[in-house]
Amino acid sequence: MAHIQQSLSTSISSSTSTLMDQHKLRLRSQNVSLPGKTGGIVRCVATPSTETSSKTKVSRNENLAKLQAGYLFPEIARRRSAHMLKHPDAQIISLGIGDTTEPIPEFISSAMAQRAHDLSTLKGYSGYGAEQGEKQLRASIASTFYANVGIEEDEIFVSDGAKSDISRLQVLFGSNVTMAVQDPSYPAYVDSSVIMGQTGQFQKDVEKYGSIAYMRCTPENGFFPDLSSVPRTDIIFFCSPNNPTGAAASREQLTKLVHFAKNNGSILVYDSAYAMYICDDSPKSIFEIPGAKEVAIEVSSFSKYAGFTGVRLGWTAIPKALLYSDGFPVAKDFNRIVCTSFNGASNIAQAGGLACLSPDGFKAMKNVVSFYKENTEIIMETFKSLGYKVYGGKNAPYVWVHFPGRSSWEVFSEILEKTHVVTTPGSGFGPGGEGFVRVSAFGHRDNVVEACRRFKELYK
Amino acid sequence: MAHIQQSLSTSISSSTSTLMDQHKLRLRSQNVSLPGKTGGIVRCVATPSTETSSKTKVSRNENLAKLQAGYLFPEIARRRSAHMLKHPDAQIISLGIGDTTEPIPEFISSAMAQRAHDLSTLKGYSGYGAEQGEKQLRASIASTFYANVGIEEDEIFVSDGAKSDISRLQVLFGSNVTMAVQDPSYPAYVDSSVIMGQTGQFQKDVEKYGSIAYMRCTPENGFFPDLSSVPRTDIIFFCSPNNPTGAAASREQLTKLVHFAKNNGSILVYDSAYAMYICDDSPKSIFEIPGAKEVAIEVSSFSKYAGFTGVRLGWTAIPKALLYSDGFPVAKDFNRIVCTSFNGASNIAQAGGLACLSPDGFKAMKNVVSFYKENTEIIMETFKSLGYKVYGGKNAPYVWVHFPGRSSWEVFSEILEKTHVVTTPGSGFGPGGEGFVRVSAFGHRDNVVEACRRFKELYK
Repeated sequence: MAHIQQSLSTSISSSTSTLMDQHKLRLRSQNVSLPGKTGGIVRCVATPSTETSSKTKVSRNENLAKLQAGYLFPEIARRRSAHMLKHPDAQIISLGIGDTTEPIPEFISSAMAQRAHDLSTLKGYSGYGAEQGEKQLRASIASTFYANVGIEEDEIFVSDGAKSDISRLQVLFGSNVTMAVQDPSYPAYVDSSVIMGQTGQFQKDVEKYGSIAYMRCTPENGFFPDLSSVPRTDIIFFCSPNNPTGAAASREQLTKLVHFAKNNGSILVYDSAYAMYICDDSPKSIFEIPGAKEVAIEVSSFSKYAGFTGVRLGWTAIPKALLYSDGFPVAKDFNRIVCTSFNGASNIAQAGGLACLSPDGFKAMKNVVSFYKENTEIIMETFKSLGYKVYGGKNAPYVWVHFPGRSSWEVFSEILEKTHVVTTPGSGFGPGGEGFVRVSAFGHRDNVVEACRRFKELYK
Repeated sequence: MAHIQQSLSTSISSSTSTLMDQHKLRLRSQNVSLPGKTGGIVRCVATPSTETSSKTKVSRNENLAKLQAGYLFPEIARRRSAHMLKHPDAQIISLGIGDTTEPIPEFISSAMAQRAHDLSTLKGYSGYGAEQGEKQLRASIASTFYANVGIEEDEIFVSDGAKSDISRLQVLFGSNVTMAVQDPSYPAYVDSSVIMGQTGQFQKDVEKYGSIAYMRCTPENGFFPDLSSVPRTDIIFFCSPNNPTGAAASREQLTKLVHFAKNNGSILVYDSAYAMYICDDSPKSIFEIPGAKEVAIEVSSFSKYAGFTGVRLGWTAIPKALLYSDGFPVAKDFNRIVCTSFNGASNIAQAGGLACLSPDGFKAMKNVVSFYKENTEIIMETFKSLGYKVYGGKNAPYVWVHFPGRSSWEVFSEILEKTHVVTTPGSGFGPGGEGFVRVSAFGHRDNVVEACRRFKELYK
């Protein structure tokens, strides 16, 4: 029996390796080639030691066992790589994981190169920076994005990206909070909540985790939840412009949301990572709403503005006025988390962030955003011309295409199989995404145009 | 009553801001000047909104409330800045927080600058990388540090530093594990354990958290714990060469430790961030010990080898053979954590890491290490000549000086007050550090020599 269990372990272990290899494929988002070495031979050599290995007596964290399959985007990478194996000559185009493709404006990359060079001089060298970020960058973020709403330099925590800070916020809140989330939504909110033990088991019939309030966002409600049907939770995650629906909440809607949070005594975690894509008068920060400073945290990022997805730089704003029920400031505990669990973003990336916020850098970022918005229009027009209902796009780099009555994964597979274009199935963002596919506008123009040509051929 | 509570909140909030300002001072470790703007005026303007602010109904995470004072190093920064205010003309020398001071070798910084430039070209741009790190860097870490011990590329997870990965490991393990830690030890192990809810309250009489097994390391036991007196725990944190004592465990000692972990079914988290400072035949990796792959995780970093404290790059090795009690591979769950809570280290930092591991880069790193080791010798000789018992130093950049019968904080204050040199009080690393002071060898040569001259004057 012990032997059988060990064999099982070995096979699980092998599947881990496969999973890891699949992740590596994500590196090649604009590239058709497969890695030459799959590592199989080396792994065979190692297998005997795994077979004879003994287990520890440490129990697996039961919260991790609750998680379903892999994180969404690696799963898409897996399907993409399977498709590549099947069609080795296909010219695959990725409008899937939302990865930026356009070069970083030279003004910004030069500032990072200069900082790197400076680090090899006696005068320019610096070691540990402040865990909260460099003073000048914090000040610059505050004055660029929050000048009119009174968020100050010391309320800004510079991060290595929004995803990392979402998890640090979950560690901050701990296991004993309840949470609500838009359905559909960016999977990191729910998955990090599961990992922290805030949820029950996954309920296969409804495709939801127990104890999470899913706030359904559909075309019928203008992608803004019916708050009268949402129960009180400690934490509310809200992303606007939304990933994946592309919907930006209006001032009136966000005012309702802030009042809802205030009435419930909830903390609102507002993800504004796509705010620069807003071109109408929707608020670009939750702090534009009166009273938000007493209920909200805002998470944001340079990733989709300056192509910093690989450079890793973001920030979180936590107002001093945001207090726990005992009056203790949330920012003070987050500061402790940041000091204990993080040592600040890379100083070179921070130099890039500072360049982004200079007049020239900001103009360059706006140009990057404009480029992707043109892509968005091309994609929207394509699907509209084919008679599909499309949502989002206007204020976001994501087009949310409705395929009524069909399964998202089925449409995803159909598009991949017949056009070699990778999209993202809406149901991967929660049950509310079923029947939709997200098409990302992050791509070289040629690729976007070519993908749209193929869409037209498939769905004409 | 509500009003009183609000006033209290306001004062806590203000002290938060002060705490945050103090952190900023850490930026200036080689610099005497105070920041020109303390932010006091701006804060006064904001005060009224804080006064009228309402509390949320979210309970503060009780684990964060267990933490004592601030994280050690910010507390030292606070005392340093108070000293600077009192002695504005003093030439303060910091041999405190263990921050590197020497420029990054040009070969390495040039590789980072080149990568930054490449990011502004169509060909050289890359977005999201693999969350586990770039394939080439993982392979290079495996072949440089683990060639003879069979750790493979896909068992390496590249991180933004050891501190971040220690916390990600704690999230991996969850709240229901027990842990053991060297006493004294790097405070991040204990503090991250408290944050995750693995511990009881802080017990002021013994200066320990409940439910943590403190493994006393003293001159009497050669800084290696008496394992016969250590209870079984799920997790054992062990750092060698040790921070703060500077002691490197021998092969025989580490063999005992691995057997102890194996017999108990424990997982050993081995921190080897100072391994390159070893100059005798002490193992540089836990995986040199037979059987370690079935019990151990190794955390490491480029910080103290290449001056990457601000660049942020490290790694964690998790063998596929390390299994939970149900046979599930630990690496597979860690992979899920990394994918959900992290998006990989900065691609520019990773280019630096790759350069570090080229023949020229490795030689340059060795020179950096040698430089700091010369500093160590100067410090050791100084205290020896004054009749003090000194430990560590030989295989580590830290000198552990014994002041028998005296309080660490008292000696820390005496040294700061009379020589303007910042050290670290041993008791900050746990009750076992009482009576010791850690002197860091990270400093410009002139500063180290000058600090030693002042030590000689004080203790002659």
